[in-house]
Amino acid sequence: MSGSDPFTLITPTPAAGFDLAVRLARLAVKLAQPSAEIRTRLRAAYEQDSEQLIAASQVTATHFQTIAAANDYWRASGAVT
Amino acid sequence: MSGSDPFTLITPTPAAGFDLAVRLARLAVKLAQPSAEIRTRLRAAYEQDSEQLIAASQVTATHFQTIAAANDYWRASGAVT
Amino acid sequence: MSGSDPFTLITPTPAAGFDLAVRLARLAVKLAQPSAEIRTRLRAAYEQDSEQLIAASQVTATHFQTIAAANDYWRASGAVT
Amino acid sequence: MSGSDPFTLITPTPAAGFDLAVRLARLAVKLAQPSAEIRTRLRAAYEQDSEQLIAASQVTATHFQTIAAANDYWRASGAVT
Amino acid sequence: MSGSDPFTLITPTPAAGFDLAVRLARLAVKLAQPSAEIRTRLRAAYEQDSEQLIAASQVTATHFQTIAAANDYWRASGAVT
Amino acid sequence: MSGSDPFTLITPTPAAGFDLAVRLARLAVKLAQPSAEIRTRLRAAYEQDSEQLIAASQVTATHFQTIAAANDYWRASGAVT
Repeated sequence: MSGSDPFTLITPTPAAGFDLAVRLARLAVKLAQPSAEIRTRLRAAYEQDSEQLIAASQVTATHFQTIAAANDYWRASGAVT
Repeated sequence: MSGSDPFTLITPTPAAGFDLAVRLARLAVKLAQPSAEIRTRLRAAYEQDSEQLIAASQVTATHFQTIAAANDYWRASGAVT
Repeated sequence: MSGSDPFTLITPTPAAGFDLAVRLARLAVKLAQPSAEIRTRLRAAYEQDSEQLIAASQVTATHFQTIAAANDYWRASGAVT
Repeated sequence: MSGSDPFTLITPTPAAGFDLAVRLARLAVKLAQPSAEIRTRLRAAYEQDSEQLIAASQVTATHFQTIAAANDYWRASGAVT
Repeated sequence: MSGSDPFTLITPTPAAGFDLAVRLARLAVKLAQPSAEIRTRLRAAYEQDSEQLIAASQVTATHFQTIAAANDYWRASGAVT
Repeated sequence: MSGSDPFTLITPTPAAGFDLAVRLARLAVKLAQPSAEIRTRLRAAYEQDSEQLIAASQVTATHFQTIAAANDYWRASGAVT
């Protein structure tokens, strides 16, 4: 089973790293539910449910932790922009 | 998809690091639910729900773990203020 | 109790690492519920439940964190493909 | 938004580190729900709910992991008292 | 309170490490509910509940992360078998 | 607020480390609900609830990860007994 498009964990900035974390959180949902139509229907409900929004934020936080370590916390670049 | 404003993980103090962790926990919710009006409505309920307050605290704890590592736990600065 | 087929944490790319993370998340479910028939029945419901899809994404995020560290975040190879 | 009072992650003992972890778990709740009156009302219910007590213990465990790493697991001091 | 039988985190292969992670996830349940009869009754229900199977997979993922780090991700041995 | 009795993260064996992880998971519950009588009442229900037993196992897994790192995964001692 190969489902993911190629990607790298190395990003220029923390903000780009955060966007990647959101994408990886959604990627696992996409691999579990390949139908875009069903995901769109589910999304309409989950976007209005604070419990699920918090749970999704937790997944992003775990991925962001991984990506931040991969980029040595963007210390070198002092990257802010 | 680029959603996040620029930010750095490097903060002067643990307290500033904790505030950043709260902001990152909310950032993922904002990226998942861009409507400020809906977020405000959801917030009114979630603020009164201890289960969701605890779940939000868990997201902050994961982000704070990342930020603390990024700042080498503010050991060098012995930063307290 | 030995249930898992042989595998390695070392993968050529982040995408292959992510696929492995999804497989490990499912492996634990398989070891807890060996009946493929029951798993297929359960899957039909869980695939339509955004809460469970988010929870499954959390498991994948934890395994991906482990696999990324095992591969030194694919820094050396600059692996993207 | 600066909400947290100054603090350091460096504590003399594991027990002091654990107390700090409990305080940080509660700090995020305080920042999300500034009203002491509402928090007291919510606390009366959550203290009697084993699911929420376990979830709160999970938040403390994540913060304690961060604080233990910050103090190099109190190895040097062999701190027990 | 000493409840656990002796064990080591060092395993020959990732697969053996995964099996150990499953055992440790169950060990904590056994220490919390010593009655094998009650655990067997509970297991019959949880095995048919995808939410609980996913939550159990999350516990295994956290233990596997610990065991993988203990074995330096089985890099040296290139262990696959 | 100082609630915890003195303890060290350094244990002779993984099994002793696991017992400590269970104790720390319960310590946070004790600090949140000081009444032994209420905790005993809550425990009678939670011990029969597989969802809560799994959630408690997750807390133990996070503490065990911290304790294992503190003891360098008991590599040196090859500790099994």
